[in-house]
Amino acid sequence: MKLKDFLTEKWMNNYEREARYNLTDTSCDALSMNDLLACQPDALADLPLDYGWITGDPALRQEILSLYSSQDEDTLTTTCGALQGNEMVMAMLLGDQDHVITFTPGYQQFADFPRWLGCDVSEIELCEEDWSLDLETLKAALKPNTRLIVFANPSNPTGTWLNKEQLNTLAAIAREHTKTTGQPLWILCDEVYRDPMDENQPAISDVYEYGVSTGSFSKLLGLAGLRLGWIKGNADLIDKINTFRDYTIISAGPLSERLGAIALQNKEQILDHTHKTVADNLEVLRKWLKQTPYFSCVLPDHGTVAFLKIPEGISSERFAKDLLEQTGIFFVPGSCFHKEGYVRLGLGKTHEDLAGVLEKLDAWTQNWLAHLD
Amino acid sequence: MKLKDFLTEKWMNNYEREARYNLTDTSCDALSMNDLLACQPDALADLPLDYGWITGDPALRQEILSLYSSQDEDTLTTTCGALQGNEMVMAMLLGDQDHVITFTPGYQQFADFPRWLGCDVSEIELCEEDWSLDLETLKAALKPNTRLIVFANPSNPTGTWLNKEQLNTLAAIAREHTKTTGQPLWILCDEVYRDPMDENQPAISDVYEYGVSTGSFSKLLGLAGLRLGWIKGNADLIDKINTFRDYTIISAGPLSERLGAIALQNKEQILDHTHKTVADNLEVLRKWLKQTPYFSCVLPDHGTVAFLKIPEGISSERFAKDLLEQTGIFFVPGSCFHKEGYVRLGLGKTHEDLAGVLEKLDAWTQNWLAHLD
Repeated sequence: MKLKDFLTEKWMNNYEREARYNLTDTSCDALSMNDLLACQPDALADLPLDYGWITGDPALRQEILSLYSSQDEDTLTTTCGALQGNEMVMAMLLGDQDHVITFTPGYQQFADFPRWLGCDVSEIELCEEDWSLDLETLKAALKPNTRLIVFANPSNPTGTWLNKEQLNTLAAIAREHTKTTGQPLWILCDEVYRDPMDENQPAISDVYEYGVSTGSFSKLLGLAGLRLGWIKGNADLIDKINTFRDYTIISAGPLSERLGAIALQNKEQILDHTHKTVADNLEVLRKWLKQTPYFSCVLPDHGTVAFLKIPEGISSERFAKDLLEQTGIFFVPGSCFHKEGYVRLGLGKTHEDLAGVLEKLDAWTQNWLAHLD
Repeated sequence: MKLKDFLTEKWMNNYEREARYNLTDTSCDALSMNDLLACQPDALADLPLDYGWITGDPALRQEILSLYSSQDEDTLTTTCGALQGNEMVMAMLLGDQDHVITFTPGYQQFADFPRWLGCDVSEIELCEEDWSLDLETLKAALKPNTRLIVFANPSNPTGTWLNKEQLNTLAAIAREHTKTTGQPLWILCDEVYRDPMDENQPAISDVYEYGVSTGSFSKLLGLAGLRLGWIKGNADLIDKINTFRDYTIISAGPLSERLGAIALQNKEQILDHTHKTVADNLEVLRKWLKQTPYFSCVLPDHGTVAFLKIPEGISSERFAKDLLEQTGIFFVPGSCFHKEGYVRLGLGKTHEDLAGVLEKLDAWTQNWLAHLD
C-alpha cells in the first residue's frame, strides 16, 4: 500500500519559507546554540562524536525519567524525535488487520501510518463545538481486534486535552477491553505538547500499564533542531524497540543527547519563556476574538496549537494560499487535516506585533470575501 | 514476525565499554566538536535549532552531490545515518513475499530487516578463500520475484569489494532481469566504507539506473555522533522516501547538517588522517600475519574492516569473551555473523602500540589453547 502524502508536512515544506508572519507553527521560539550553551559554553568541546550511549546518555536519561512518576530505567529509550518514537511503537505493536482508533481532526501519522502497516483504522470525530472527545463514542468503536488507541495529548490541531480523570476513564475502558479479549489494548499518547512541569497533566505511561508516552524537545522546549525524543512505557515493549533501533538508528547520537541533557537541566528557564509567550499570545487572541467578525476559536487550556474557524463556505486551501501570497500571513489550512472551515493557529512563537497582524488579517479577509467569485 | 536480535549491535552494546584495546570497531577515530570546528569556530553560534531544511541543508546537499558523477537535486535526501537510509529504501521497495538477495557473512540488517517485512531472503555465501562474490552463483539465485540485491561495498565484516567492472556486470545482470520480469530489480549498496575521493570506487547509483547508494559520516569521516547519512538514487524512489520521512523523522536536523557540511568541506584533511591510520595498521598487521601461528586474514583493498581467522574448532564467542575478560582486547565474534572461525577486525582506529597488542594476543592465545578443556 502506498503511503499517503503527509499533508501538513507537505504544506509546510512547500510554503513555510514564503511566510512573513508565521501564525501556524506548532513549535515555540527556537533556541540557538549560543542560547543553549550560555550556561555551559564548553559542554561540547571534547565530546567525541562517536555513537555515544546506545539507548541514551545516562545524564539525559535521568533528566527524562524525572518527568515521570514511574522511573524504572528499562521503561525508557531515546529516539530521533517523538515522531520516530510513534513510528517505532506502532511498528512494534501493530500487524496486518489489527484495528486502531484515533481522533479527527488529528495528526495524520496516527491514521495513515497504521493504514500503511495494513491496519483497519477508525477515526472518531471530536465534538466540533469544543473539540472534546466523547468517551462513549470511543467505547462504541472498539472491536475485538482493537489493539491501539493513539492520539496527541494535548492535541494538534485542535488543542483537545484529556485531563487526569478522563485519562483514568480511558485507561479503565482499555483495561476492561484487555481483560475481555485477552490481548493488551495499548494507548499511545504523543505528549510533545504536554507541559512536564504541570502536575495536572499526567503522562499516559504513569496512568495505564499499557500506556506509552512519547515526548520530545521540539515543541515547548524550542529545540526541534536536536531531532531528539523518547519513548516511555512497558519494559518489554521498550526492549523490542531497542532491537528495532539496532536496525534503524543505533543511537540518537551523543551531540543531541548532551544538548538535550543541558536543556532539561535548565528546563524551568526555557519553559518560563514558553509560558510567557503562550500567555501573551492568548491575551492578544482573546481580545481579537471578541471583536473579529470573521473568525472564532476554542482556545485550548494546554499545548501550543488551536484550530481557528474561518468564514463558512470557502476553501481553506484557497484562503490560506491567497492570504500567504497577498499578505505573508501563513497558516496550514484545515484541508490538510481533512476538515474544511479551519486553519491551524500556533500559539508558541513570539510575534513583534500580533495584534497588528490580526488586524491586517481581518482587513484582508473583508476585502477578499467581497471580491470572491 | 518478531525482529531478530541484531547480534553485532547487541555484542557491542554489552561489551564495548569493557574494552581496553578495541580491535573490532568499524569506524575511524572519532573527531571531537573542537576538532571539527577548529576552522570555523563560530559556525554554529547563531544557528536556530528548528527543523531546518526538510530534505537537507543546501550547502550539505551540494557537498554530498559532489561525491557522485550524476548530481541531480531530486536524487538525494538526508537521513539520520545510512542504517536508516537502508531501512527507508527497503521499506519503500519491498513487500510481503518479495525475494531479496544478499551475501553472507554480511551485515545482518540486509537479511533480517527484509525478513521482518515479510520477504523471502537468499543469503549467498562468499568464497571463503578470498571473500569474493561469485556472480554466477548470484545469477542462479535470481527468481521471478527478486526485487532487490543488497550489500555493503566495501563490505562489513569481510572487506569484500566489488570493483567497477564487477559492478557493471552486476548491473547488466539486474538490467536483464528487469527486462525479463517487467519489474525493476533494484540494487542497494551501503557505501559507508566507500572512499568518495577514490575514483576507482564508483557508486552503484552512478552505475545502474535502479542502483541506490547510501552513505554516512560515521565510518571514514569519524563522525558517527552526527547520526547523519543520505540516500542517493532514482528520483521517484527519493520522492517516496521523502513522504516516508514526513512520517518518521521530518528532517535530519540543522545542527548535524551544518556540521556535516563543514566536515565535507574539509574532507581531504579528515580522510588524510583516515588513510594514514588504515595504512599504518595494515602495515603492522601484514608483518604480524607473516609470523603469527594462530591467525590469518584476507586484508582488504578498501574499507576499514576485515575478518580475522582464529584457530579452528573453537567457539568464536567463547574466544572473544575470554580474551576480553582476561586481556581487555575486544573483538566481535564470527557467531554474530553466523560464521564460526572468525572475529571482526577493525582497521580505522589509531592504537598506541598495535604491534604490542597483537603480540599479547598471540601469547594469550597460546596459553588459552593449551588450557582449553
